Amino acid sequence: MRKVILAVGISLDGYIARPDGSFDFLFMPKDFSMAPFFASIDTCVMGRKTYDVSVQNGGGSFGKHIASYVFSRTQPPGERDGVIFVNEPAAQLVARIRAGHAKGKHIWLSGGGELAREFLHADLVDEIHLGIVPVALGEGIPLFPPGFPQRNFKLLENKIYLKGLVELKYQRVRRKH
Amino acid sequence: MRKVILAVGISLDGYIARPDGSFDFLFMPKDFSMAPFFASIDTCVMGRKTYDVSVQNGGGSFGKHIASYVFSRTQPPGERDGVIFVNEPAAQLVARIRAGHAKGKHIWLSGGGELAREFLHADLVDEIHLGIVPVALGEGIPLFPPGFPQRNFKLLENKIYLKGLVELKYQRVRRKH
Repeated sequence: MRKVILAVGISLDGYIARPDGSFDFLFMPKDFSMAPFFASIDTCVMGRKTYDVSVQNGGGSFGKHIASYVFSRTQPPGERDGVIFVNEPAAQLVARIRAGHAKGKHIWLSGGGELAREFLHADLVDEIHLGIVPVALGEGIPLFPPGFPQRNFKLLENKIYLKGLVELKYQRVRRKH
Repeated sequence: MRKVILAVGISLDGYIARPDGSFDFLFMPKDFSMAPFFASIDTCVMGRKTYDVSVQNGGGSFGKHIASYVFSRTQPPGERDGVIFVNEPAAQLVARIRAGHAKGKHIWLSGGGELAREFLHADLVDEIHLGIVPVALGEGIPLFPPGFPQRNFKLLENKIYLKGLVELKYQRVRRKH
């Protein structure tokens, strides 16, 4: 099945960004590559604020091989600038993506916290990949804002990279609470 | 030097307890032992709420070999029930503890979040030991409530235990921001 994978870098105290949205504290160690992950996905979903920060930093769309969906309550739905704006329940979009290409690759939930909460609330997150950087920010935008039921996971992988980056991969365990 | 070590178990989403203070989600894997850690400390400091929950669960004091200090703004300072209530700045207590026994063992900061914030704010935390359990609670009492300046750390250790417990140990890096 096409998994929904919440994959993000976070500070030791659980932030995906500073209060102003900047993420200068995140780093990509020389021995770490996003290539295997990118090869495993063909779809990216993100919140509008995450998209805006991405555009401000020269990003936004990931090119034609990755369909990018941006959840926004204010932007009109539709394709623009290489991304597809949507305004619908997360479960509905995920069902639609899966129905469109049942044998497609995985779906990357790239942030931010509010969308992660909606996905966790609807129990749509199949895996969580955390890249934990060794800095406590003291304030910022949390990856896991409160407001969803308990979700149990199983540790899949634990790797150390240069400069103390720890990557933890978890798989959702749905058989019991 | 006698280090201050913030050592606690947390959920994947950074909580030390559920909203009501309960911590049933934490577990001690069979291959994990607190004994080496307990052998490395002779002092424990905690917040009053953490102490209350500990007492409710049959804990509180750790016996005569570990001096336990409880920070409280409401309880009168002094020794009672095997612990020492204090009401003073964290930096002052730590300085006093270190001055009393310069060659003593390390100081365990066992929680909770509000006291961790005060210690991080005063830059008193020398190491952080996190036992990360593979469950996202969705709500609870955070280990790192916001409100302290950025603190950089270095990864010291990363171990996996049974049932997916991950223990990460970090050391404070003070030479640069």
